[in-house]
Amino acid sequence: MKDHKIVNDPVHGFINVDDKLLLDVLNHPWMQRLRRIRQLGMTNLVYPGAQHTRFSHALGAMHLMQMAIQTLESKGVDITKEEAIANMTAMLLHDIGHGPFSHVLESSIVEGVSHEEISFLLMKGMNEHLDGRLTPTLDVFSGKCKPFLHQLISSQLDTDRMDYLKRDSFFTGVTEGNIANERIIKMLNIANGELVVEAKGIYSVEKFLIARRLMYWQVYMHKTVVAAERMLIKILSRAKTLAMQGEEVFASPALKFFLYNKVNANDFGTEETIRQFTLLDDNDIMTAIKVWMSSSDKVLSSLSTAFINRELFHIELSRQPFAPHRLQMVREAINKKMGIPMEMMEYYLLSGQLSSKTYTVGNDRINIMFSPTYICDISEASDIFNIQALGNIDRRFYLCYPKAVDMD
Amino acid sequence: MKDHKIVNDPVHGFINVDDKLLLDVLNHPWMQRLRRIRQLGMTNLVYPGAQHTRFSHALGAMHLMQMAIQTLESKGVDITKEEAIANMTAMLLHDIGHGPFSHVLESSIVEGVSHEEISFLLMKGMNEHLDGRLTPTLDVFSGKCKPFLHQLISSQLDTDRMDYLKRDSFFTGVTEGNIANERIIKMLNIANGELVVEAKGIYSVEKFLIARRLMYWQVYMHKTVVAAERMLIKILSRAKTLAMQGEEVFASPALKFFLYNKVNANDFGTEETIRQFTLLDDNDIMTAIKVWMSSSDKVLSSLSTAFINRELFHIELSRQPFAPHRLQMVREAINKKMGIPMEMMEYYLLSGQLSSKTYTVGNDRINIMFSPTYICDISEASDIFNIQALGNIDRRFYLCYPKAVDMD
Amino acid sequence: MKDHKIVNDPVHGFINVDDKLLLDVLNHPWMQRLRRIRQLGMTNLVYPGAQHTRFSHALGAMHLMQMAIQTLESKGVDITKEEAIANMTAMLLHDIGHGPFSHVLESSIVEGVSHEEISFLLMKGMNEHLDGRLTPTLDVFSGKCKPFLHQLISSQLDTDRMDYLKRDSFFTGVTEGNIANERIIKMLNIANGELVVEAKGIYSVEKFLIARRLMYWQVYMHKTVVAAERMLIKILSRAKTLAMQGEEVFASPALKFFLYNKVNANDFGTEETIRQFTLLDDNDIMTAIKVWMSSSDKVLSSLSTAFINRELFHIELSRQPFAPHRLQMVREAINKKMGIPMEMMEYYLLSGQLSSKTYTVGNDRINIMFSPTYICDISEASDIFNIQALGNIDRRFYLCYPKAVDMD
Amino acid sequence: MKDHKIVNDPVHGFINVDDKLLLDVLNHPWMQRLRRIRQLGMTNLVYPGAQHTRFSHALGAMHLMQMAIQTLESKGVDITKEEAIANMTAMLLHDIGHGPFSHVLESSIVEGVSHEEISFLLMKGMNEHLDGRLTPTLDVFSGKCKPFLHQLISSQLDTDRMDYLKRDSFFTGVTEGNIANERIIKMLNIANGELVVEAKGIYSVEKFLIARRLMYWQVYMHKTVVAAERMLIKILSRAKTLAMQGEEVFASPALKFFLYNKVNANDFGTEETIRQFTLLDDNDIMTAIKVWMSSSDKVLSSLSTAFINRELFHIELSRQPFAPHRLQMVREAINKKMGIPMEMMEYYLLSGQLSSKTYTVGNDRINIMFSPTYICDISEASDIFNIQALGNIDRRFYLCYPKAVDMD
Repeated sequence: MKDHKIVNDPVHGFINVDDKLLLDVLNHPWMQRLRRIRQLGMTNLVYPGAQHTRFSHALGAMHLMQMAIQTLESKGVDITKEEAIANMTAMLLHDIGHGPFSHVLESSIVEGVSHEEISFLLMKGMNEHLDGRLTPTLDVFSGKCKPFLHQLISSQLDTDRMDYLKRDSFFTGVTEGNIANERIIKMLNIANGELVVEAKGIYSVEKFLIARRLMYWQVYMHKTVVAAERMLIKILSRAKTLAMQGEEVFASPALKFFLYNKVNANDFGTEETIRQFTLLDDNDIMTAIKVWMSSSDKVLSSLSTAFINRELFHIELSRQPFAPHRLQMVREAINKKMGIPMEMMEYYLLSGQLSSKTYTVGNDRINIMFSPTYICDISEASDIFNIQALGNIDRRFYLCYPKAVDMD
Repeated sequence: MKDHKIVNDPVHGFINVDDKLLLDVLNHPWMQRLRRIRQLGMTNLVYPGAQHTRFSHALGAMHLMQMAIQTLESKGVDITKEEAIANMTAMLLHDIGHGPFSHVLESSIVEGVSHEEISFLLMKGMNEHLDGRLTPTLDVFSGKCKPFLHQLISSQLDTDRMDYLKRDSFFTGVTEGNIANERIIKMLNIANGELVVEAKGIYSVEKFLIARRLMYWQVYMHKTVVAAERMLIKILSRAKTLAMQGEEVFASPALKFFLYNKVNANDFGTEETIRQFTLLDDNDIMTAIKVWMSSSDKVLSSLSTAFINRELFHIELSRQPFAPHRLQMVREAINKKMGIPMEMMEYYLLSGQLSSKTYTVGNDRINIMFSPTYICDISEASDIFNIQALGNIDRRFYLCYPKAVDMD
Repeated sequence: MKDHKIVNDPVHGFINVDDKLLLDVLNHPWMQRLRRIRQLGMTNLVYPGAQHTRFSHALGAMHLMQMAIQTLESKGVDITKEEAIANMTAMLLHDIGHGPFSHVLESSIVEGVSHEEISFLLMKGMNEHLDGRLTPTLDVFSGKCKPFLHQLISSQLDTDRMDYLKRDSFFTGVTEGNIANERIIKMLNIANGELVVEAKGIYSVEKFLIARRLMYWQVYMHKTVVAAERMLIKILSRAKTLAMQGEEVFASPALKFFLYNKVNANDFGTEETIRQFTLLDDNDIMTAIKVWMSSSDKVLSSLSTAFINRELFHIELSRQPFAPHRLQMVREAINKKMGIPMEMMEYYLLSGQLSSKTYTVGNDRINIMFSPTYICDISEASDIFNIQALGNIDRRFYLCYPKAVDMD
Repeated sequence: MKDHKIVNDPVHGFINVDDKLLLDVLNHPWMQRLRRIRQLGMTNLVYPGAQHTRFSHALGAMHLMQMAIQTLESKGVDITKEEAIANMTAMLLHDIGHGPFSHVLESSIVEGVSHEEISFLLMKGMNEHLDGRLTPTLDVFSGKCKPFLHQLISSQLDTDRMDYLKRDSFFTGVTEGNIANERIIKMLNIANGELVVEAKGIYSVEKFLIARRLMYWQVYMHKTVVAAERMLIKILSRAKTLAMQGEEVFASPALKFFLYNKVNANDFGTEETIRQFTLLDDNDIMTAIKVWMSSSDKVLSSLSTAFINRELFHIELSRQPFAPHRLQMVREAINKKMGIPMEMMEYYLLSGQLSSKTYTVGNDRINIMFSPTYICDISEASDIFNIQALGNIDRRFYLCYPKAVDMD
């Protein structure tokens, strides 16, 4: 009874967790912390249903891993109990290093350290708490395992992607992003020790790639979401600038730690940084921004107020870079209409570029198996896709500024 | 009260029919006949849920037409009440000329007349019964209307396709074929009098094309379905051959009419042919085949028995044509193992080719509107597709023979 | 490969059949015949989606049985492989004796034999074809097994009911009838050798009973459905009367057998009756009725025409019996307005009663387990239901007559 | 364009907001604030998907109101445009006065003021901001309108309940709570100026009541949820006690306001209270509790740590009150095993009672219309329910204490 838990997931139905190690990981405070970090940051400003957390995603990805392993076993693939648990634990933990609004944080108050690196540090730390029982899991991440086991946790068709596409589709209500995980998983197999999809699954894989692309531009890079995230970066940068100048900036102790200290990759090695980091979540950020609405710093207060009340900046997307004189025109308008001094312009004129790839042609492939001896990459197997285009990076340039500045 | 009907549709929910003409069409015996004709013929031998009828599809397509018209009206497009009803009626009637297992019939007992031609004949006939009230509907089919009204009933993004893709996906359980009609419809607009999709709908259109392709090969051209349909063609051809030779062949009077007479396009002009045709449905065919299981003709009885008991022929698909010597080998095996005389081989060795196109590049385009002045074809607008491939005809050759003949 | 089949079911998803006996039963012609018999008879005249067959229901019920067995095993209940297969086979076969429009047939052309009796006869016959391998299955039906195994196949919470409620809800589109099978099944357990539901499942069972009641009156006893079925009974009775009088009545040989012979329970023992019965399905009935539209017998032709063109009789429901003088008034109106002679009135004035029970208080109980020693009946366990009412028979009287007779 | 917004809701699909007043309300900061308050408080500790906000519920309830109004209009009920907008605005605003974890707050840091009262105050305030355009909305709440308009916003079948049952079912994954809103709404009508449900909707209403009951005990009063909420109340009470004693307690300024001041109903009249209250949301509470994990006060730190790391108290439910000596035994165990002094016991031994009613028999009825002249209450109309039981208050007593104290 103690070693068994059933969780009700609106996406996959009942999820069973019936292994001691899985339960110990699930109950660890660092894991519980993911309950307080939204999977899609501020996407809820556009899709109000998108409040789901990294915790539910981790559970879902673990569940799909279990299904994938059962499918492979039913096809005669040899997987030990320990390997199965290691892979399932890996899915629970794969995002453990995410902070609140991760990509935002990495562009504002933390420097030069990715969430993947932090994940690895936290897993090593948790491994100590759990008497080394996570060593097989860490090995899977490092690739010290059968190749297909690593591919299941990290490749273009891993259960991470399968869960988040379906989950994000479910909670945003963008039904077209819904993918048929069950079907793809049923068609997984192993050939020459590598993960492959059986040939009759080719249309499902095509559909998976198209759904990913659709979610990318319709949700992940939705222009209003981009505007909100860029504003959030500027808010946190401003707060950090003020803090580093010695100004008093309201924050919870954990957030203060990251505002008042330069924190880079090396620092994450220290116990104190880890402690503070694992106390941080979406709540600290949102609470602080609400208080900053009444900051004496005009930049901080105006950006925070606009953000909290959802008076988001206007954003333009373009396939061509914006011309320098265009940017200058906007700057002048901001200056003139809003009285913002030119030296503060970096907080009001936000520009840059977005990019995505539908599929990476290269080492990390989705292999389609026509027969045990005829296996090829989806980009070759599918006659519908423009192989070149599939691997291309799809770029958009954005230009973002206060709505008060009417440029139309 | 009399002029209002609500139908419960598991695909779209409640469907309202609240116009006198729509109700009169719905209640017409020729329309009611579609309740007895399955949308997907023998596909239920593979997907047992696929029992849905052309009647429910016609209702669904009418419902989507209503949604499309409401969307366009909300964007300021001028559509009169009469135009709206004509277009909705058109969707109710667009498949009125389908017989049971249409494509099978057209390849066996009826000659040189398509269901589109029959549809037009039946609509003209029904127009007389309804005192000419269908004239505006007939005009839409002939294109005597605003161009976009015709495009709504017949183009690569018409409400016919939208309904059947979603409906067939729902009833087969092939969830990946599910398309987001509601979303595509919301993005329809008119530019220069032509139907266009607004630019932000581009990913939905990509998804629609991929879903169509997936349904094509996973459902419509599923190999077991092809095998069953080819057997059905041979059964009906054999019955007709026997009938034309003056043999006694059991059939309902309506089916007898088509077995004992040569019926071609011209004959469909006569009242008697129309009368007999509109009495024919899936039940006549299935009932006859069951009786034919005990026919004294070996070919007819053996094929009928195999078909009814679902002992279907084996089928091979290939991208290359099968070599003549391969066909000859199969013929000889059938002759030797089953004792089938060589002159009957056409009933046991079935071969030919299947083809599909994901998208037709040409006059009938899906237009994407980036701005009122910048409109282009989806094949150019989408950077993911190989334009060439998109318009290519995708061909497969098939070879079909009794399972008793083990060729592996 | 030979002993494994995956079926795509829109209700439950993928259904695995991976046992030789299950596959042999599935492929038996008597089982395949259920593909041609609709689960809900003429309900599709009201709910056009309700075209699903007894075949898909049998598969679904088998699938739920598998889930129930797995749940019990996971709770430590001892079930042998043979017992599991016997129970799953039982679900495949439980409806094998259904003819087309069963309840209609039993009230018209067949006498004094229920589909349960025919099922048992057919199972015994099939057992011979399968070399006695169905003996354990027959034992479960006869109760020669652990009590809970019998309860799983036949009780107020058996997998038969669970599947058909969900399936009928799915295909009719009456979403409220949808029940959470997965949840109820997860809460099944065994106490003192009997099937029980764990206490936390009490609300799910309440919901199940209410959903059943809702489906009963909204679908199974929907007034238009009742009108259509009563007309069908009269059509078949009239055809049989004519046949027994020696008149020529069109029918397939199998249907002819039942029209031109008195067939009662004893006759079903003969091989010929079984042979003819297993050739009969929905197609024979529908084909015949279409032909009868032009019968020289006015009663047969008028009823058949109304039925095929869906010009159904008007029906009134009442909790009180209709008064004799009311019936007489209707008879006279039919006679006067339609010219129907009084001696034919039994075909035009249809009356009788419908009844249902939400729950049977008695031997066959739904037991709720609060603790291993405290188990009680749902009617006592639930404080919401009126126990008396729960077990009451819910009766409605109906009165049905041609619409042409305006009684309002 | 400015006056139109489409929101994607995973529960209802596209929601249109196309009225200036509705948009102005939607964009008001007090409304936007509901994006930061979860509908179900800490229920996500049990059902991880339940992260949805009061904002999305308000939108959904508005959407259902629009559907209800359209249905009534289609049945000839006279509703002016102004009345329709007033009722829709009412649904947007009906929960505007909810604070974070409302019921928790009302039992800890705020005294003697309900969220209904605060809602009314905020609406009056917002009416000033919007130049009195909310006056018709306020009138609907006060009942100064056609009776059925008030019933639509507040009765046992209002669109508030309809939305939250369906929404909570969707996000928790408790599929059995799903209700068929569309169907119930289609059956609404007006008789003698009152809202009624047409007789054929009786089973849907029964199902609605049972679903409500199921959600009540399976979700809203789920024992683990109750344990978490009771702990949260104790945490906030302790923090307030410390604050009132002059201790330094970390909090955002808005939360500080409520910790360091006695705030009762009268205080809510002041502008400052309103200002602070509308700055408060879930984030402030969660952020503070995380900081309180390292409070120097043992009670506050231990409860906060347990809460954040989801080491929730054990909870027992019983239909009988717990005996005083039982409580005493638990107290002593807590004291002995955990070293908690007896005077702090109120924070560790939590007891009380829960109650729910499935249906209130009385003035606020669900009326079923059998005919324009025969209308009666659902509790009489339905023969399945025990009328007495239906109106009964269903009580459970709970006893909650740290898991470390093993009482079993």
